[in-house]
Amino acid sequence: MIKNKEITSRDTDFAEWFTNIVQKAGITDYSGVKGFFILAPNGYALWEQIQAVLDKEFKKTGHKNVYMPVLIPEKLLKKEAEHIEGFAPEVAWVTHGGNQKLDDRLCVRPTSETLFCDYYSKCVKSYRDLPKLYNQWCSVVRWEKETRPLFRGREFLWQEGHTVHATAEEAEFETRQMLDIYTKFFYDYLAIPVIVGQKTEKEKFAGAEYTFTCEALMYNGVSLQSATSHYFGQKFSKQFDMQFLNKDNKLEYMFQTSWGISIRTLAAIIAVHADDNGLVLPPRIAPTKAVIIPIGKDEKVLEACNKIAENLQKEDISCILDGSDKSPGFKFNQYEMEGIPVRIELGPRDLENGTITLARRDTNEKIQIPLSENINEKVKNLLEDIQANMLKRATERRDKMTYVAKNMKDIEEIITNHPGFIKAMWCGDQKCEEEIKKIGGTKSRCMPFEQEVVGDTCVCCGKKAKKMVIWGLQY
Amino acid sequence: MIKNKEITSRDTDFAEWFTNIVQKAGITDYSGVKGFFILAPNGYALWEQIQAVLDKEFKKTGHKNVYMPVLIPEKLLKKEAEHIEGFAPEVAWVTHGGNQKLDDRLCVRPTSETLFCDYYSKCVKSYRDLPKLYNQWCSVVRWEKETRPLFRGREFLWQEGHTVHATAEEAEFETRQMLDIYTKFFYDYLAIPVIVGQKTEKEKFAGAEYTFTCEALMYNGVSLQSATSHYFGQKFSKQFDMQFLNKDNKLEYMFQTSWGISIRTLAAIIAVHADDNGLVLPPRIAPTKAVIIPIGKDEKVLEACNKIAENLQKEDISCILDGSDKSPGFKFNQYEMEGIPVRIELGPRDLENGTITLARRDTNEKIQIPLSENINEKVKNLLEDIQANMLKRATERRDKMTYVAKNMKDIEEIITNHPGFIKAMWCGDQKCEEEIKKIGGTKSRCMPFEQEVVGDTCVCCGKKAKKMVIWGLQY
Repeated sequence: MIKNKEITSRDTDFAEWFTNIVQKAGITDYSGVKGFFILAPNGYALWEQIQAVLDKEFKKTGHKNVYMPVLIPEKLLKKEAEHIEGFAPEVAWVTHGGNQKLDDRLCVRPTSETLFCDYYSKCVKSYRDLPKLYNQWCSVVRWEKETRPLFRGREFLWQEGHTVHATAEEAEFETRQMLDIYTKFFYDYLAIPVIVGQKTEKEKFAGAEYTFTCEALMYNGVSLQSATSHYFGQKFSKQFDMQFLNKDNKLEYMFQTSWGISIRTLAAIIAVHADDNGLVLPPRIAPTKAVIIPIGKDEKVLEACNKIAENLQKEDISCILDGSDKSPGFKFNQYEMEGIPVRIELGPRDLENGTITLARRDTNEKIQIPLSENINEKVKNLLEDIQANMLKRATERRDKMTYVAKNMKDIEEIITNHPGFIKAMWCGDQKCEEEIKKIGGTKSRCMPFEQEVVGDTCVCCGKKAKKMVIWGLQY
Repeated sequence: MIKNKEITSRDTDFAEWFTNIVQKAGITDYSGVKGFFILAPNGYALWEQIQAVLDKEFKKTGHKNVYMPVLIPEKLLKKEAEHIEGFAPEVAWVTHGGNQKLDDRLCVRPTSETLFCDYYSKCVKSYRDLPKLYNQWCSVVRWEKETRPLFRGREFLWQEGHTVHATAEEAEFETRQMLDIYTKFFYDYLAIPVIVGQKTEKEKFAGAEYTFTCEALMYNGVSLQSATSHYFGQKFSKQFDMQFLNKDNKLEYMFQTSWGISIRTLAAIIAVHADDNGLVLPPRIAPTKAVIIPIGKDEKVLEACNKIAENLQKEDISCILDGSDKSPGFKFNQYEMEGIPVRIELGPRDLENGTITLARRDTNEKIQIPLSENINEKVKNLLEDIQANMLKRATERRDKMTYVAKNMKDIEEIITNHPGFIKAMWCGDQKCEEEIKKIGGTKSRCMPFEQEVVGDTCVCCGKKAKKMVIWGLQY
């Protein structure tokens, strides 16, 4: 396969390659507002696919969607000390409404814990009102200094779930349950083998008791925090006076969680799967599964292509037929760039020979099959093959790029020469975490649920190790 | 049927009745942010239904979803004079990002014409790039002084379509096409017989060449503008330098439209259909079509109810089974309040007799049918019956409340004693429109596409009439 010349190679300049792809594949575009990106049609369609799958899972587990205000009064944000400290430097402040200065300024929501807390404090009276399992799909604003498409914009679309429960057990179950939903989604739909575990104290969410995370490894060896689930215990609930009458008729503070995933997921898909010809979309999440390209303008060829399209659509295999007068080569390039999993080619000679060509986007292999075969069946099998192969390939790469470090020198060698996930033992002391960060910004990604013992002592101070931690660079 | 005592009667105090219903039916709730409302689970679920139907229609007609920034630089908003004049008094201004004052302030989007214009000016080069048919689902902020749930909040969810075309014909076709989609949606799904037509110059959208509208008539005789579609011609395109190379290779300005519908649609559903016992949802848009209520705790009754629920779900008739230990009376009230179209009751005696009771929400009639019958079929037919009956009832009421006025005295009499839609002839002069507005705020709602001649002369000045206009009060 010839490399698409319009984009930089990912081995030459990963950042440039990424930026080329998001634009040329119609995922995002620059807007006239500094630091803000447009989610273009192909990007939005992909987000809709993600929404559809996750929203169904959320509803299956009893969650309901709501919508909270986009603006938050400063005094509400200030109620939880760690929270305001974490967010104050990066919020946008509304100071005027119409032509009048406001008495109290409002920030454009950076996240909505405080609004949900305020609401729950009013609408929950007794254990009978619990749990409340709400979620919202919306955008949030964070005043980032440096921005890049999908990874870090001043605004991003996301989903934020906020729940309150009568007991710590229930809330902790919820925290893990939602992480598991995300994890399964990453593996089964996005073909991304995320590592799951708990964030260290230093890296947890501002105001949480603890934070669970899914960490993806990108092609360039940098880690990407891809979904998080937080357990708040009663921290916010004490600040917001969120009390309820428990079964013993006593007032008690609620137990709370929040969890979210954002359009950064699109960045993960690209950074894990795309290649030098553009996007490669995992079939289960691809808005369009197949593109049919008639070669030439023969009426009979077009007819046959139409028939194939009709049949695919009958079985809900979304496809497009491009009968425009652009050249086949141009079309091949374009749909490769957009990452459509299967390409179906049919020309006059194929028709004569009674054959058809299927090309798979992940490996670029072409297969010829008789036109008389059950094409739907072939396409469905191919889509499943591609899905499986993409996960296999991404897992192999992740494993190849996961290293064990026994000491600080190992970490330095890895980060300098071939960054990836680094497994290393840790004593649990934040000071050691800070020391390690000095090595090119190496951060703890998570303490994986699946612990391994790769040593007995902390990689930094040499004291007894408590946890195996995955370390890495972050975007 | 006994009136629900927890809510005011709509005949006693319409505004109070409305506010009672939105809260008790779980549609909206008050938030901790002044002038902003929470869209609660039942309200959001209804909005999701609306989104699903319309989004499909938009996509069928070639539109694609995108997402534009939530903040708009002041200088962009100022580019079109009429537009900024229309919106400046009611936008929220962001003046600080993080801890720094911004050089240029940004407003929280009140509508996104200016962002789409800016984008199209950059991404469209030639007629080959046209048309661009984009839509976005988002929220907008308008700094209203007086607010009320669903009718007028400082923030509301909506959809805004923005398209550009190579010719005026195409853009005008689009403007009408989208209005027709809305109109069909109001009739077929919401059972609301809107009047459709063109807004007068005075009432059109700030910056549009002309505006089409769907006007609903509420139970209290007040009109509600429920969806609009605007034709901009080249007005914005000249201000934003939106040029393209046409087929003759000459630079030309694009022709533009925009169109939208908001959660005010939920207000229309309530204000047209709800009654003194709560919501009455048109079946085709109801998130839950049927509720099954077992009477008593008999195991066999529960089993039979489960079977009914399973069967309904098999045919995608969404239903809930409430087997909680609340009393049947309490449950009846609650689901009537939520407007679920069909209630299915089954008790031990029914089981003995081999019967089942279906209650329809629109008329409160109860029907007993043999348990051995095809219940799915019965429920489906009943849902269609309810849907048709609701449109019939709303149309009869609208017609009954539509009056002809021959002179200003007629208008005054109608507005004072029994407000509704008023058909009256108009000369086309804005001065007369302003005179009529002095009668209790009577505004032109639209010049209906289906014109009638109800007189020869203007109801106000007596000069030759040009148009029959629908007048009314507005929310």
